[in-house]
Amino acid sequence: MSDKPLPQHPDAPTRESATTFRPVAEGMEGHVNVYHPVLDHGFIAVKDYMGDDVSILQMARMSYGKGTKGVSDDRALLRYLMRHLHTSPFEGCVIKLHVKLPIFVMRQWVRHRTASLNEYSARYSILPDEFYMPEPHLLAVQSKDNKQGRGDSLTAEQAAEVLRILKEDAQRNFSTYHNLLNADEDGNAIDEDRDGIARELARIGLPLSTYTQMYWQTNLHNLMHFLRLRADPHAQYEIRVYAEKMLAIMADWVPVTTEAFRDYQLEAGRLSRMELGLVRDLLAGKASMADAERYGLTKREIREFKDRFGC
Amino acid sequence: MSDKPLPQHPDAPTRESATTFRPVAEGMEGHVNVYHPVLDHGFIAVKDYMGDDVSILQMARMSYGKGTKGVSDDRALLRYLMRHLHTSPFEGCVIKLHVKLPIFVMRQWVRHRTASLNEYSARYSILPDEFYMPEPHLLAVQSKDNKQGRGDSLTAEQAAEVLRILKEDAQRNFSTYHNLLNADEDGNAIDEDRDGIARELARIGLPLSTYTQMYWQTNLHNLMHFLRLRADPHAQYEIRVYAEKMLAIMADWVPVTTEAFRDYQLEAGRLSRMELGLVRDLLAGKASMADAERYGLTKREIREFKDRFGC
Amino acid sequence: MSDKPLPQHPDAPTRESATTFRPVAEGMEGHVNVYHPVLDHGFIAVKDYMGDDVSILQMARMSYGKGTKGVSDDRALLRYLMRHLHTSPFEGCVIKLHVKLPIFVMRQWVRHRTASLNEYSARYSILPDEFYMPEPHLLAVQSKDNKQGRGDSLTAEQAAEVLRILKEDAQRNFSTYHNLLNADEDGNAIDEDRDGIARELARIGLPLSTYTQMYWQTNLHNLMHFLRLRADPHAQYEIRVYAEKMLAIMADWVPVTTEAFRDYQLEAGRLSRMELGLVRDLLAGKASMADAERYGLTKREIREFKDRFGC
Amino acid sequence: MSDKPLPQHPDAPTRESATTFRPVAEGMEGHVNVYHPVLDHGFIAVKDYMGDDVSILQMARMSYGKGTKGVSDDRALLRYLMRHLHTSPFEGCVIKLHVKLPIFVMRQWVRHRTASLNEYSARYSILPDEFYMPEPHLLAVQSKDNKQGRGDSLTAEQAAEVLRILKEDAQRNFSTYHNLLNADEDGNAIDEDRDGIARELARIGLPLSTYTQMYWQTNLHNLMHFLRLRADPHAQYEIRVYAEKMLAIMADWVPVTTEAFRDYQLEAGRLSRMELGLVRDLLAGKASMADAERYGLTKREIREFKDRFGC
Repeated sequence: MSDKPLPQHPDAPTRESATTFRPVAEGMEGHVNVYHPVLDHGFIAVKDYMGDDVSILQMARMSYGKGTKGVSDDRALLRYLMRHLHTSPFEGCVIKLHVKLPIFVMRQWVRHRTASLNEYSARYSILPDEFYMPEPHLLAVQSKDNKQGRGDSLTAEQAAEVLRILKEDAQRNFSTYHNLLNADEDGNAIDEDRDGIARELARIGLPLSTYTQMYWQTNLHNLMHFLRLRADPHAQYEIRVYAEKMLAIMADWVPVTTEAFRDYQLEAGRLSRMELGLVRDLLAGKASMADAERYGLTKREIREFKDRFGC
Repeated sequence: MSDKPLPQHPDAPTRESATTFRPVAEGMEGHVNVYHPVLDHGFIAVKDYMGDDVSILQMARMSYGKGTKGVSDDRALLRYLMRHLHTSPFEGCVIKLHVKLPIFVMRQWVRHRTASLNEYSARYSILPDEFYMPEPHLLAVQSKDNKQGRGDSLTAEQAAEVLRILKEDAQRNFSTYHNLLNADEDGNAIDEDRDGIARELARIGLPLSTYTQMYWQTNLHNLMHFLRLRADPHAQYEIRVYAEKMLAIMADWVPVTTEAFRDYQLEAGRLSRMELGLVRDLLAGKASMADAERYGLTKREIREFKDRFGC
Repeated sequence: MSDKPLPQHPDAPTRESATTFRPVAEGMEGHVNVYHPVLDHGFIAVKDYMGDDVSILQMARMSYGKGTKGVSDDRALLRYLMRHLHTSPFEGCVIKLHVKLPIFVMRQWVRHRTASLNEYSARYSILPDEFYMPEPHLLAVQSKDNKQGRGDSLTAEQAAEVLRILKEDAQRNFSTYHNLLNADEDGNAIDEDRDGIARELARIGLPLSTYTQMYWQTNLHNLMHFLRLRADPHAQYEIRVYAEKMLAIMADWVPVTTEAFRDYQLEAGRLSRMELGLVRDLLAGKASMADAERYGLTKREIREFKDRFGC
Repeated sequence: MSDKPLPQHPDAPTRESATTFRPVAEGMEGHVNVYHPVLDHGFIAVKDYMGDDVSILQMARMSYGKGTKGVSDDRALLRYLMRHLHTSPFEGCVIKLHVKLPIFVMRQWVRHRTASLNEYSARYSILPDEFYMPEPHLLAVQSKDNKQGRGDSLTAEQAAEVLRILKEDAQRNFSTYHNLLNADEDGNAIDEDRDGIARELARIGLPLSTYTQMYWQTNLHNLMHFLRLRADPHAQYEIRVYAEKMLAIMADWVPVTTEAFRDYQLEAGRLSRMELGLVRDLLAGKASMADAERYGLTKREIREFKDRFGC
């Protein structure tokens, strides 16, 4: 999260200010139309937003009517909402992002259905020659314990060789793409005497690492759900870096909510019925970890319990 | 739609302006935090919004990339999107409303699921003594042809009698409510020596005409769907007046979109396969209305076809 | 959950069997078209369903491909899915219910948006004279600590008086309803010489306790979300009894999933970042409950922590 | 739609019958677990379904109560629902499909958000060496008038050359994939002395033509929306063939609904406010096509109007 707000993206409109009667989130205004780079060719930029910490409270207070006069403290009420999963008021905040990302990341991203999106159309337009190449230190062998994860990194030589192969393949795919289209990146014919094949067909040989872009919009409740899954260490690195950037933006947008989100969701944990029983008896001195299996925990759950509580 | 922007609602916050880098819809700014009365005790107010006509185009243009350089005319592109039901760009605009409405209207409203809402809780708080009484000229007998509609209006005497009965009943229900709660509208005990029953129980005898309120938020695509159904003459009058007010607000917010919405959706019409065939042959002089049944239209469809085309 | 499958509801179609190539959940077949009574006039009946424990596994296994050969044990895989919130496979099971319920319960029910529903229309048809009257022992005063709950029960005399008032009011409202409609429950005119007012208007004075009915359909993932909120002790009693009946039906439908649901969701608990830290240090003997505030827990959270772990 | 129900897919479970009390759609039972081939390596198979024409009516009739006694004719009522877009009863039917399809088709498919899906995970498992190669006659040049469509077909020689290039590239990409994984299609190590890189990384160079598979489930209302867009001539051929197969399956499942769907939706047409006005005056002899522009139609709309009505 070290990268700071950045110079304008070449395509970005100039930032222009205007007067509004709507709620304004000061910390978020600094992000509007600012393009933050992610991965080697990607970016994430806030195009628009709606709501702030205060508007969440306003929605909650309308709902409780005079019944909640007691809770005078804004921060306490926001934290109460988060703790008790009173999610409706968070839906009142909305964020619209412009995101450029590799297609294999996009394919994970769209699994989140409660969002609006509009993607660059490769049926209408030619895709730029941009594909994702991991940084060498990210290349790692298949994990032995985690069926969907990475294990040890490759040596520098191995990594260089992998990248050489991936790059050569992708360049060849793009070369074929332009050959089939009979057009360069700007749409100019390569050979004036022949027609290119349809764009919707020519693109089928492009690699999953090809960059696409989209406008993506969701409300704060669904954004937090996205972040719980995608800012998690088990998420694939290439989507996690987008999620982490979004979490940093969220902290500038709704700081009190973000703190509560970390405390009650992101860094909180769920204990199963069996684990709750075990903790209860451990605290009362009625059980030791040696009894864990008796509580119905599997071997794997016992191992994870020990990791979590350092016992 | 004649009623103009109105004086502040007592509960409305003062309108305060601030600077923003977000898109601003000039015509909509005049509505923010302005409470428009609807029915006898209801209102509708814009609390926040996101996007405008230009931001819809921006989303569409990103999607088409360089492939749509040709369509230089903003208005033409917006109308093209509407005509061809390219709905994603319209999802990029969002509106948040504060609405006060009778419960029987609310029950129709919540059938629209792709929206966020937060309602006043009668489990937490005491409902104010407000219930809907129709204006006398709206009282009408059951329609003979339309199973869910109204027919002729009542006479002034009949209407007065109906209103007297409805009002007396509602007042009695509210009196019972306070009696059970042992509390007045402000929550003060009526009889200090006894407890009231739980609010969640005391309210079950209140009438469906009781007013409730909510924050309701949806995107422009779903708003248009709402308006197609609820600004329609077949919608119940009491929800239609809310829809008409929303349509007027929409016209100030996204004027070009609203015009296209009227032309291609609201005042457009669908013709069945059979009707298309009939029109084709009527225009070619190969058929007359006397042949309509032969095209597979039912008697009712023929009657409606004649009404629509005045033939 | 003691009430057993019941005699047929008068409106229920005869149960007829047929042959199918679809997955069949034996335990669920006994529920199809069986009407279980809930509250004084309500019911819940399974009209149709899709999927079973095995079909959840089938979906999960397709997704993991050959990568999950290791997990040979069905029960272990289902529990793994539930524990890790791999929710997609649960969406593959669907339930369609016919439910009769008071309108104030319906209003809570429809807050769950990811479901399909079709409700009895009081614009088209006359509502039967049925309204909910709580059993006397359920009548309770407003809770002192829980703003939306019930406290002590009323005495038998107080309860009888409350019910007398509620019943008298509701009967009067229904009498007005028929008077305005100029029609009895079967739609026969009371006075042949006059017209009744429109049904959509006549109903606005009916109480929130009036019964309505609907077909309601959702997938198992969303059903579990419903049950987490509505089978919870904080839910209003009158919706909780429906949720508990649904949970009992679910146990017959997908028994292994239901057991996992109880263990990892319904009877599991979330611990905040602060609580996790406290438990870690309590178990390591590095802290005592006297230190709890130092971990950032509020007084209320400390009280609830003590209740949960009996310490 | 000529291809008939086919022999079992190798992975398909044996079709086993059982007894059920649920509604059974006779025409659909013949599809359960039958794998229909689509494209060169794809398929579509019904895994489960819920509801039929009769259950749609049952939902509608519950809603109308006694108010719709008049409509005794089932077919007429179904057609009425379709014509008037009373969509809720159609949501009561659900279909679950197993689909194998190229990734670029999948990417269009998932734009339909109101569905449940579970996809083969290339993070967990190795993708089979299967990629889509169009049949030669489908290869066509970019359309001149339709920015997202195909124009004339290639000559046999040109097509053969395009396919040769696409195939060579894809084979090379798959060869790289196995090289990076250090594993063959069955997961056996190629070189026992080294580790393969993580599956989630190795796949990023595979082409968009690679086949994936999923379980996909939606209700009939959303299925029809899918078919309106994807069985349309403007849809890309490679998704249209899946949609056409689904439409054929739907006709066996809910034949009366499918006929109404064709008449009132698929082969129906929308006329704008301007077109309605023009038709009205053309039929009354008050206008000729020469006046069309005066009604506010654009040149393109006039051309399309003439095509539609052959005038």
